[in-house]
Amino acid sequence: MKVVCFGELMLRLAPEGRLRLLQEPKFQATFGGGEANVAVSLANYGEKAKFITKLPKNDIADAALRELKGLGVCVCGVVRGGDRMGIYYCEKGASMRPSKVIYDRAHSAISEAKEEDFNWSEIFEGVDWFHFTGITPALGDNVAAITKNALLEAKKRGITVSCDLNYRKKLWSKEKAGKVMGDLMQYVDVCIANEADAEDVFGIKGETSDVENGKLNAAEYESVAKQLVDRFGFKAVAITLRESISADDNNWGAMLYKDGKALFSKKYAIRIVDRVGGGDSFGGGLIYGLNHYDDPQMALEFAVAASALKHTIEGDYNRVSVAEVESLIHGNASGRVQR
Amino acid sequence: MKVVCFGELMLRLAPEGRLRLLQEPKFQATFGGGEANVAVSLANYGEKAKFITKLPKNDIADAALRELKGLGVCVCGVVRGGDRMGIYYCEKGASMRPSKVIYDRAHSAISEAKEEDFNWSEIFEGVDWFHFTGITPALGDNVAAITKNALLEAKKRGITVSCDLNYRKKLWSKEKAGKVMGDLMQYVDVCIANEADAEDVFGIKGETSDVENGKLNAAEYESVAKQLVDRFGFKAVAITLRESISADDNNWGAMLYKDGKALFSKKYAIRIVDRVGGGDSFGGGLIYGLNHYDDPQMALEFAVAASALKHTIEGDYNRVSVAEVESLIHGNASGRVQR
Amino acid sequence: MKVVCFGELMLRLAPEGRLRLLQEPKFQATFGGGEANVAVSLANYGEKAKFITKLPKNDIADAALRELKGLGVCVCGVVRGGDRMGIYYCEKGASMRPSKVIYDRAHSAISEAKEEDFNWSEIFEGVDWFHFTGITPALGDNVAAITKNALLEAKKRGITVSCDLNYRKKLWSKEKAGKVMGDLMQYVDVCIANEADAEDVFGIKGETSDVENGKLNAAEYESVAKQLVDRFGFKAVAITLRESISADDNNWGAMLYKDGKALFSKKYAIRIVDRVGGGDSFGGGLIYGLNHYDDPQMALEFAVAASALKHTIEGDYNRVSVAEVESLIHGNASGRVQR
Amino acid sequence: MKVVCFGELMLRLAPEGRLRLLQEPKFQATFGGGEANVAVSLANYGEKAKFITKLPKNDIADAALRELKGLGVCVCGVVRGGDRMGIYYCEKGASMRPSKVIYDRAHSAISEAKEEDFNWSEIFEGVDWFHFTGITPALGDNVAAITKNALLEAKKRGITVSCDLNYRKKLWSKEKAGKVMGDLMQYVDVCIANEADAEDVFGIKGETSDVENGKLNAAEYESVAKQLVDRFGFKAVAITLRESISADDNNWGAMLYKDGKALFSKKYAIRIVDRVGGGDSFGGGLIYGLNHYDDPQMALEFAVAASALKHTIEGDYNRVSVAEVESLIHGNASGRVQR
Amino acid sequence: MKVVCFGELMLRLAPEGRLRLLQEPKFQATFGGGEANVAVSLANYGEKAKFITKLPKNDIADAALRELKGLGVCVCGVVRGGDRMGIYYCEKGASMRPSKVIYDRAHSAISEAKEEDFNWSEIFEGVDWFHFTGITPALGDNVAAITKNALLEAKKRGITVSCDLNYRKKLWSKEKAGKVMGDLMQYVDVCIANEADAEDVFGIKGETSDVENGKLNAAEYESVAKQLVDRFGFKAVAITLRESISADDNNWGAMLYKDGKALFSKKYAIRIVDRVGGGDSFGGGLIYGLNHYDDPQMALEFAVAASALKHTIEGDYNRVSVAEVESLIHGNASGRVQR
Amino acid sequence: MKVVCFGELMLRLAPEGRLRLLQEPKFQATFGGGEANVAVSLANYGEKAKFITKLPKNDIADAALRELKGLGVCVCGVVRGGDRMGIYYCEKGASMRPSKVIYDRAHSAISEAKEEDFNWSEIFEGVDWFHFTGITPALGDNVAAITKNALLEAKKRGITVSCDLNYRKKLWSKEKAGKVMGDLMQYVDVCIANEADAEDVFGIKGETSDVENGKLNAAEYESVAKQLVDRFGFKAVAITLRESISADDNNWGAMLYKDGKALFSKKYAIRIVDRVGGGDSFGGGLIYGLNHYDDPQMALEFAVAASALKHTIEGDYNRVSVAEVESLIHGNASGRVQR
Repeated sequence: MKVVCFGELMLRLAPEGRLRLLQEPKFQATFGGGEANVAVSLANYGEKAKFITKLPKNDIADAALRELKGLGVCVCGVVRGGDRMGIYYCEKGASMRPSKVIYDRAHSAISEAKEEDFNWSEIFEGVDWFHFTGITPALGDNVAAITKNALLEAKKRGITVSCDLNYRKKLWSKEKAGKVMGDLMQYVDVCIANEADAEDVFGIKGETSDVENGKLNAAEYESVAKQLVDRFGFKAVAITLRESISADDNNWGAMLYKDGKALFSKKYAIRIVDRVGGGDSFGGGLIYGLNHYDDPQMALEFAVAASALKHTIEGDYNRVSVAEVESLIHGNASGRVQR
Repeated sequence: MKVVCFGELMLRLAPEGRLRLLQEPKFQATFGGGEANVAVSLANYGEKAKFITKLPKNDIADAALRELKGLGVCVCGVVRGGDRMGIYYCEKGASMRPSKVIYDRAHSAISEAKEEDFNWSEIFEGVDWFHFTGITPALGDNVAAITKNALLEAKKRGITVSCDLNYRKKLWSKEKAGKVMGDLMQYVDVCIANEADAEDVFGIKGETSDVENGKLNAAEYESVAKQLVDRFGFKAVAITLRESISADDNNWGAMLYKDGKALFSKKYAIRIVDRVGGGDSFGGGLIYGLNHYDDPQMALEFAVAASALKHTIEGDYNRVSVAEVESLIHGNASGRVQR
Repeated sequence: MKVVCFGELMLRLAPEGRLRLLQEPKFQATFGGGEANVAVSLANYGEKAKFITKLPKNDIADAALRELKGLGVCVCGVVRGGDRMGIYYCEKGASMRPSKVIYDRAHSAISEAKEEDFNWSEIFEGVDWFHFTGITPALGDNVAAITKNALLEAKKRGITVSCDLNYRKKLWSKEKAGKVMGDLMQYVDVCIANEADAEDVFGIKGETSDVENGKLNAAEYESVAKQLVDRFGFKAVAITLRESISADDNNWGAMLYKDGKALFSKKYAIRIVDRVGGGDSFGGGLIYGLNHYDDPQMALEFAVAASALKHTIEGDYNRVSVAEVESLIHGNASGRVQR
Repeated sequence: MKVVCFGELMLRLAPEGRLRLLQEPKFQATFGGGEANVAVSLANYGEKAKFITKLPKNDIADAALRELKGLGVCVCGVVRGGDRMGIYYCEKGASMRPSKVIYDRAHSAISEAKEEDFNWSEIFEGVDWFHFTGITPALGDNVAAITKNALLEAKKRGITVSCDLNYRKKLWSKEKAGKVMGDLMQYVDVCIANEADAEDVFGIKGETSDVENGKLNAAEYESVAKQLVDRFGFKAVAITLRESISADDNNWGAMLYKDGKALFSKKYAIRIVDRVGGGDSFGGGLIYGLNHYDDPQMALEFAVAASALKHTIEGDYNRVSVAEVESLIHGNASGRVQR
Repeated sequence: MKVVCFGELMLRLAPEGRLRLLQEPKFQATFGGGEANVAVSLANYGEKAKFITKLPKNDIADAALRELKGLGVCVCGVVRGGDRMGIYYCEKGASMRPSKVIYDRAHSAISEAKEEDFNWSEIFEGVDWFHFTGITPALGDNVAAITKNALLEAKKRGITVSCDLNYRKKLWSKEKAGKVMGDLMQYVDVCIANEADAEDVFGIKGETSDVENGKLNAAEYESVAKQLVDRFGFKAVAITLRESISADDNNWGAMLYKDGKALFSKKYAIRIVDRVGGGDSFGGGLIYGLNHYDDPQMALEFAVAASALKHTIEGDYNRVSVAEVESLIHGNASGRVQR
Repeated sequence: MKVVCFGELMLRLAPEGRLRLLQEPKFQATFGGGEANVAVSLANYGEKAKFITKLPKNDIADAALRELKGLGVCVCGVVRGGDRMGIYYCEKGASMRPSKVIYDRAHSAISEAKEEDFNWSEIFEGVDWFHFTGITPALGDNVAAITKNALLEAKKRGITVSCDLNYRKKLWSKEKAGKVMGDLMQYVDVCIANEADAEDVFGIKGETSDVENGKLNAAEYESVAKQLVDRFGFKAVAITLRESISADDNNWGAMLYKDGKALFSKKYAIRIVDRVGGGDSFGGGLIYGLNHYDDPQMALEFAVAASALKHTIEGDYNRVSVAEVESLIHGNASGRVQR
């Protein structure tokens, strides 16, 4: 399967371990971004993943592309130009101290890209699946227009489209998000969301009000999914269910709503190594799962197990193989040494 | 509010992560000390904190002062002279392996300071609060005398005085501690102690005997506090309550005894990053809390939340803001990513 | 007591923290191996431990010996020659992601050693105890023959022999292991095994079938030990009991079967720092315990406490003292700071 | 003496040692900027240095201020607001491979500051000297206007003004620079330049044409200085003279033109540790020197020795004391161990 | 141009900076090998470079391929299988202390590869140039046979062939090398050698006898090249000329003998960062140069400048661009900061 | 040969690379001391070296002994007790910035040792050579007395004694040094000094006055040696000759005065990695050389080559072998890669 992911790729600057930002004069310097993270997951599973973005011509962006290429993601369609690459600073929380993300992404090359930068007809040659997240159109009206161009071309070609709602309050208001995303949803086949996205973007909610404290309520999630399907005609809706015990311990599961039925995954109690990119790894796993298993429950379990493993991996990218995910699905969660 | 803290500042040498001392030929090199830790907490909360000590004229002490200044602590009153700066080696425990502290503090500049080194009248100009710990008079009879000079001047000026009993058995015997501290307590308004201090220094105990195993008994703590108030006339007594499950997991809370009433804080289950300085961060939080909240319960909750957060911060100093502490007080303990 | 341990010593290459192999271009480079790990434990406890192996004449092996010498192990009997030193790559797991060990040990100097390389009569001069593991004879028929030579000489001299079964499926088949080890067991006095070894090597099992999920059944372990004693005439059998909750959390205990009685140790819930070498540290603790305590229960408790502590230490070697182990046996498991 | 320096402060991200950018996934993260570097130099020499800029309210800028405060620079006048802090990536060259600086400074808080952000009358209270560089007005017309406001106020108060021309071709054209700087020069008393600045900004040159190859010609520099004085009426002009043998080895000296006389300094052959900030450290040294020595030759020697030492210090800031500079002036250049 | 390089790729383990091997328990872990180094150079210059080898199926080899892919080298033809990847330990010298390389490459997958592992007809599809070094046939008779198969197919297809003699005394004797290489040379068009190779492999020498002391004699090098051309009919012979002043300082140049003329390059005085891979970077530069410049002198200058730059880059791979090499050719060797 | 070295062993804390002290919050933590450095050199050359000192019973001292044992030095005679281990902070200079050493060694265990701590009769059992430096008696009158006891016993047993004058102005005045050392010299056979020691301690000088600038004058050194022999009756005097070009570059050679003749060594131009311990490595080399070569010129060349190599090694200890030193003596100074 050939998948295109479109979005922003950022430099990620993080202190070592559990240090606060700049407590020592060092940063770990890696890369990540919602859609790139999905592309890496898919490449790791052996899919042909192509990542589309715009990046400046400089050594920092070159390094970002070097890493993606090394991980097997095709970057031949990346447009080069613009002034800068977005950055985010990432401080890992611990216990009751929350993780902290500071964005410095304004004026990035992708956020200032133009519609004519992307020839979607060429990009989608031979492509089966297109994935984007709600972050991409949030980057600006121009990027929303580019996204719409992509969706129109994708639909013309019968490409399946998935979207992770991924609401970011620092990028746009709920109102703006609702309006722009509401328009784009008509082209989407598979909608992915976390506990809060549907309400933030579309005002769709169950009665669960206490997301901060991580209480989950299965019935309400089903209700949210049904409302999403009813309003936008999605073929499937997946919602990740995170219970945050602390910055170190989370419970993690998901629901897949498909053909009028809500399937719930196994739930994992996770000791967290790196939580950022957890949702994206679910998206990557779901796209793989829906295309490789006849049984939607298995697709869901693959996505959840893959993203559970991501929480044990440093960095945005989910560096695990299909074999590792399947081993976990089949119950090997004891962490024993594999010699 | 302007606060003066007086005590020893040491170089802290620690291996990385959970390595044993010198398992690799490196040390993290930071600084800390009971009273400096309190001063940093207060500066972080926006208070005018001044730290008083004596340090030699060398590059190591210069670096210590550079860090304090950077953190907003006034070091203009630090006396320079003497031969060396105290050092402590700090090995982090893990699971059932205890953390280990080795002191190399004898003959430090402050431990050999003279009464005439400190002009308390000048130091206390415009000051509202004075804080010291039981470690300071334990450094030697000369330092106990200096401390008494400070207390006399503080009382003359109507400055509120807080003292953290902080008994250190390597510095003096219980008998000596009881005698010296017993004399100094007459000048103290707010007394802070951990589970064991009151008994170690003053022989005051409830019936709780199993501190090592971390069992707590609320009633007994109240009894200890009442005895302290009865004997020394403190306006308030605060006792931190630590249950040590392991070197990685502690439960943490505190009691504030004030106006004849024992208030108990919320209790936190903490996954520990760095435990050293935990008690001091409670002291810093309490001084702030007592001065900024009318409700003593809120003062206590601030102190406990602040010190719970400290356990998630590397190094002696509690690098958190009022906003972060208040967010935790208001129930945001899930460790979710703050974007 | 003078102990000889015989086996392979390898270079251990591991990424920092919880990184995947070569996620960053660095390795921690330490050394380890089943029998060397036991020798280090014993040297730490004050015993005269001598380690026998064959290593090439190069800087890597020199460094390995430098470390052993530093830790107090006598390496004067190590044979120098051959082409290379075995290597293992070690990736630490996290949560449900298992730890991973990749061996590159074929063609190591010890695996290609010859019988005439070792003069056992000389090596065993004044020796009281001889220890090896099932890994050593698995290295090749030549090494099995060398091991048998050692055992014959040991028995001739009345030296007590202990063997940790330590089955490694990458080195030999169960059939081959059963045959070779079955022959060597006649010289063994104390047999050590983990949950799976007895079945893997000798087909001896209770009804416990779910080792991967870490369920334990005390009665069955007793049955396994009894069968081992019945078949091979061991004076004692010790079986370690590991419940793997995850790569971060294990429960750990052991059984000692001696004089027809099964003794069960206290069970420890361990937050893991480094799990590799855990079994070896049990062996080291048991050899010490059986020689220093009259009460076999104490010997067992020493071995289990020692190996519980090993799980909190980075690297293969168990860097703890008798005092630290005994403190844990006596209930000090709270991880409180030792000042 | 009280000095105000005004300009941009940036986060500096650099790989370790001589690695290329992102050859390993780490950055050293320090701070620097032409005028801040001067302020730090002066604070190290015991002067009252105040740094003025605009920085966003975030943890990155907080860390930058923490370091400046620690180094003794007053940052109480720093305006907080705006969106981001400028960044520069810095790759150290080696031998014939040049060092490389990549700027990501557009849209920084200071570059988008407004005239009303700065109350120069308040800032200049009690100030003796004002320093800026040609980088500051190059940040935008708004910042040029702010700079002019500062200069007008400075002149009104009789404050001495120094300016380092510091031409940056990525920020503006030579034409624009010439026009804007030409206007500002009327307020400047002491002009500092390197070999190329005078020509780049004002088209003033001698006949030296081969700056890239580092050939120097004393007579021509005198001619350049004279022309600068003639055109702008400076009280003094200082020009640094760098011969670049390679990225590792430079010769370094300077000329001071004052009262119609050209003074030439001792020339240093430097093995370079970190070259960035070398010119700024000359500026800092010169301001100190002109205020502390009657003999202008001594002022010049101080500036050159200080900046020679800077080339041996990691990071933008010149971490040396007056005593260290004077020791070098007095001929102690042998690098012998000071015990 | 499409180039195939064939040879061994090894894991390179090196201590930090100038530490001796395992002086600290860490290794930098990168990859390299004569032919892979050439492939990386060519990919950096924009050529289509394909690297052929055999590597085991494990995480270490995966990481090696990840890096090559990231650097733009096609690894789609790499055969997976066999037991291990070769390793070399690399200790950087300093001053008069020589660098030290310890190989652990026996039994590597490529050294045990079979002729049927490689389908050269497929590999050479559309290829213009084939490069190998004398290390490859030295790995064993099987690898020599594979190399000969490659050469036969290359010649059948009219592919240009280059060979770097690269004599390694630890892999084979001079006699064996002379015999095997003598046979392979009939297929070679461009022969590359260092000062000592021609004599070591073919007994061809001038009168220069003092290679260790780095004295060079241009006339003799020409004589060696001429003899090589006469004996083997090469179209071109290139000899690198290294004068080793110390482990830190080398002079570096080369001669290209073509069409009966000996061209000598500019000579560079290099302060060394990492010397390993210097010769390979010359080969990569020469292949590029011969294909992109009409003037053979320019081809030679490109090769020498490229390899001079390599000595300033950490690791085996030459991470420089055509623009950087050409800038150096055009005289920009001053190492000035490029802003 | 069996050698005993007696003196202080210190913890050495140093920043990475060329950073100033505590510019980053890390220290490299190694160990060193004049006499221990000599012992390590000798152990590396295969001699039986025993180091005598007094160290406290703590983890820091344990680590120090672990390293010495690993390096082959016998530490069985080290007395344990006292309060602390001496520390020195070591900042590497660069170019014209001098290296800097800050001592924190007062009150160390050895400086407070008592005469009865050392049973010299037992220590000297079977010993051939005794080495100490002028630092040891400088630690205090008690240590001077212990040293004299050692010397008396050494002479009684006919043990050869060497002393490196090593004057340390922070430990004692020239007057005190002259008096104490003058008395001890009667027991010394081989006296080692640097350019300044003879004058500092005994007021013996040639006319060379410009040691700081590193100018050497062979004739004067001979005169100094002759005066030393005349006054104290030494069998041999060795003087190291250091020309400090800068902190990076030194010229290094030595003179041996024996049997009335002054022999001068080859002179090395050294690019320095770590200069501390350079003199001690000369002492170690000289003791080895005088015992292994009949020709005193060879003994001298060995000592100089060994110490030249030391300047390329990180840390106090000279980690080189006899083979490496001899290779350098025989002219292999080109730093070529040894494969």
